[in-house]
Amino acid sequence: MREQNREMAEGILFTDFYQLTMSQVYFRLGVHERTVQFDHFFRRYPDYGNHQAGYCINAGMETLVEWMEGVRFGGPQLDYLRSLEDTGGRALFAADFLDWLARCGDFGALHIAAIPEGRVVHPNVPLTAVQGPLAMAQIIETALLNILNYQTLIATKAARIFESGLGQPMLEFGLRRAQGGGGNGGTRAALIGGAGFSSNTGMSAVMGVAPKGTHAHSLVQLCMALGIGEEGAFEAYADTYPDDTTLLVDTIDTLESGVPNAIRVFEKLRRKGRRPVGIRLDSGDQAFLAIQAAKMLDEAGFEDTSIVLSSDLDELVIWQILTQIAQEAPRYGLDADKIIKRLVYGVGTRLITSWGEPALGGVYKLVAVQDGGAWESAIKISETPAKTPNPGIKRAWRLYDQRGKATADLLTLSDEAPGVGQGMILRHPSDHTKFRRLREGEISRVEPLHADVIGAGGRTQAVPSLEEMRAQRARDVELLDPGIRRLVNPHIYHVSLSEKLWDLKQELIAEARGNLRNEV
Amino acid sequence: MREQNREMAEGILFTDFYQLTMSQVYFRLGVHERTVQFDHFFRRYPDYGNHQAGYCINAGMETLVEWMEGVRFGGPQLDYLRSLEDTGGRALFAADFLDWLARCGDFGALHIAAIPEGRVVHPNVPLTAVQGPLAMAQIIETALLNILNYQTLIATKAARIFESGLGQPMLEFGLRRAQGGGGNGGTRAALIGGAGFSSNTGMSAVMGVAPKGTHAHSLVQLCMALGIGEEGAFEAYADTYPDDTTLLVDTIDTLESGVPNAIRVFEKLRRKGRRPVGIRLDSGDQAFLAIQAAKMLDEAGFEDTSIVLSSDLDELVIWQILTQIAQEAPRYGLDADKIIKRLVYGVGTRLITSWGEPALGGVYKLVAVQDGGAWESAIKISETPAKTPNPGIKRAWRLYDQRGKATADLLTLSDEAPGVGQGMILRHPSDHTKFRRLREGEISRVEPLHADVIGAGGRTQAVPSLEEMRAQRARDVELLDPGIRRLVNPHIYHVSLSEKLWDLKQELIAEARGNLRNEV
Repeated sequence: MREQNREMAEGILFTDFYQLTMSQVYFRLGVHERTVQFDHFFRRYPDYGNHQAGYCINAGMETLVEWMEGVRFGGPQLDYLRSLEDTGGRALFAADFLDWLARCGDFGALHIAAIPEGRVVHPNVPLTAVQGPLAMAQIIETALLNILNYQTLIATKAARIFESGLGQPMLEFGLRRAQGGGGNGGTRAALIGGAGFSSNTGMSAVMGVAPKGTHAHSLVQLCMALGIGEEGAFEAYADTYPDDTTLLVDTIDTLESGVPNAIRVFEKLRRKGRRPVGIRLDSGDQAFLAIQAAKMLDEAGFEDTSIVLSSDLDELVIWQILTQIAQEAPRYGLDADKIIKRLVYGVGTRLITSWGEPALGGVYKLVAVQDGGAWESAIKISETPAKTPNPGIKRAWRLYDQRGKATADLLTLSDEAPGVGQGMILRHPSDHTKFRRLREGEISRVEPLHADVIGAGGRTQAVPSLEEMRAQRARDVELLDPGIRRLVNPHIYHVSLSEKLWDLKQELIAEARGNLRNEV
Repeated sequence: MREQNREMAEGILFTDFYQLTMSQVYFRLGVHERTVQFDHFFRRYPDYGNHQAGYCINAGMETLVEWMEGVRFGGPQLDYLRSLEDTGGRALFAADFLDWLARCGDFGALHIAAIPEGRVVHPNVPLTAVQGPLAMAQIIETALLNILNYQTLIATKAARIFESGLGQPMLEFGLRRAQGGGGNGGTRAALIGGAGFSSNTGMSAVMGVAPKGTHAHSLVQLCMALGIGEEGAFEAYADTYPDDTTLLVDTIDTLESGVPNAIRVFEKLRRKGRRPVGIRLDSGDQAFLAIQAAKMLDEAGFEDTSIVLSSDLDELVIWQILTQIAQEAPRYGLDADKIIKRLVYGVGTRLITSWGEPALGGVYKLVAVQDGGAWESAIKISETPAKTPNPGIKRAWRLYDQRGKATADLLTLSDEAPGVGQGMILRHPSDHTKFRRLREGEISRVEPLHADVIGAGGRTQAVPSLEEMRAQRARDVELLDPGIRRLVNPHIYHVSLSEKLWDLKQELIAEARGNLRNEV
């Protein structure tokens, strides 16, 4: 995009127009600098149709913070807003409001507390809490949802696909099927969520991870057109990368042409004292072809070479492939586990788009407004009780049981602090008939989930490294009950309210409904 | 993103790593500057599960060309590539190859011919043909697919949603559910495909379209917390935008609170001589609520106000809503058509993600290689015959029947030119039993589909305006048979090969298979 266009499209105007029209209303009401809190949370796990997530992996905050730090209402944005007219032909935005934006139109006054990236997260628990002047806390909504929803969606999908592969390496290959430059955020999230590496060269550079890739069908096609054929293509590749030779074997016919040619080239490498890395299968019956290719490679003495699979994979397809290998390999006299241990998964479209559920419905809701130093809780009623947000300034905790497994996330008022070993009532967020009584001693550990990200003085913590986020994700997934990790029909993890928070919520609902009855 | 990171992640390294490793192999073979042609096409229309597209709308070229013009292998990219090591610890990219990239590593030598943006397009017809030096034509693949696939996917979805709304205005509201900054391309494509306006402020500025939006639930919530309630919120909005007042009426209770409060505020506007614009419904039974709200608005004398619907809409949901309104409105003594004519659709998640099929499987295949001035056709065989690309340098034509409707797209060799009125055989691209015989006089018009976009000297045509692209889309859709436009189970549009092209394809397949047989 041309520079002046980029300034408009990727700067602070990367927002829904109503954030700006609302902000001017706040300005007219004189409340644009009132301190408020918005909570960002999602209401349900991704449901991919025939399989469902039982947990999500939080991601995106560092991308958001970088964006926030780099944008503000400057000359070009203000000139544009000044040019807009209402239906009556008058300026839509008044000079005094634009002056305020020119002076105060950046995100420097916002405080953000959030659950760290890489952590396991659940519905209705605020992933992010934004506090600050109303107008700017409103204007950030669109970018915040855009960045955090997408990266959390993809980190979650990556974690599932990685789990389905039983710990074998998983590579992210989806850039060509992503939404323009947005795919870079997807690569980042995939690397946090479970992908070991990515084919996305630029984003791998940014993330400090070696980019991965082999070759495409076009290399083989080209060599066929040049008259040196598939074997010639493989040989040229092996000559160039003698220590990194992975060959794509399905351009003509996998078992009749690709694998035999690859083996011939591998033999030449072996004679030169080199170790071939592997082959890639990109079409056909992946389990059957993996077994047959493994057999041919074994017979040629290449038992250590990898087999990269890369044909529309996702967690269910990988599960199916592994099941089929387990069933069929013994018929060919092969050890299924040995085949599975040499597999590598190249995952493209279905990871980068979160196929089946391509958006996380994360929302950003006003939960409190300061009034003379005290917080007034805000509510939005919904005809679907589960959609009524949990009001007020809250804290979020993770409770671990005596096995050390995470057993519930608990939302409390800000002055509550649940203690280890203490008995308590956990209320369902919207169903008054559902609650759970924790006996004394049932809880072995209580962990606060939020950490400050930025305060008035800027960042309040160092940027976490990719390795830290990955380690956090691995630890958190390990602490889930196996039922929650199930790929299909997972158990429901408990997200609960403290009794005090439950009471506040009921009070506010009654009040809003009461006002309604009086009005009608 | 920080500037140095942006240079890496959004510049020429916005590509799959194998494009670079392959290019070095081409360099070693001495064919990196050989002139080749790649075709970009998709193999099937989007299938959204319970509904399917019968045509696509082409989009994205201008975004791609801007990207191509702005990137090259410069210092930071070359330094990065120089730093990469192979498994043996040696430099992965050799100095001579990097020197070549430093000298020739931009897209200035590529020629592109394409079907213009906004045109109706069909499977297997090259949307884009890229000619130029092999290495750079290879390296552009990822960005080309990323940009063109996504925008074509979204322009297609927008066209369908617009069609389902029977010509009523459709607004694109999806930025918060898009993939990061990639959503900007989605906004652009939606505006080409059928959205009248967008809430995406920055991208609306770039596209020269007024951004649209009203207010969110938070405005009402805030005013409730301030003690001035929903009516106070509406009044503040109307005071600020007396000629542009559209009010969101579902924060508390649509029919009990929202609509009555909106009507009270509309009455005040009327007394001041202003015309209220409308209301927005964002939850619940949209058809039922639209009927009831219309009745209430009519009774208060606001028959001209719009009703904006915006709750997880897509083409099927809109179709369902319109059907329900047609059935139920008469029961309440209302004219269904009058209600339908006041509807406006705000479409978010399901448009910007192309819900149901969130990626277009467009591919980029090598079809010809120059050898001493003559073109050698290239082929890739697939076990699925429909996946074998059509080889060689081709031309694409649209044939119109005596009604003036488009009846088939025809691919021919580059020296063929089908004439009006001429009889001919249209071959199915992969099934040898299927062909269609056009009688003399059956075809009333033959239209070439490709136009040059960039040649050696840069752009060969002016950038088309949004209005031109939209007009093209409207004309093309109008020229489709109604069966092709059907939202569910559309007729299959014919895409055919000339006999000469069919013969070439069979010859190349036989040759590749023949070589295979000889080898085995």
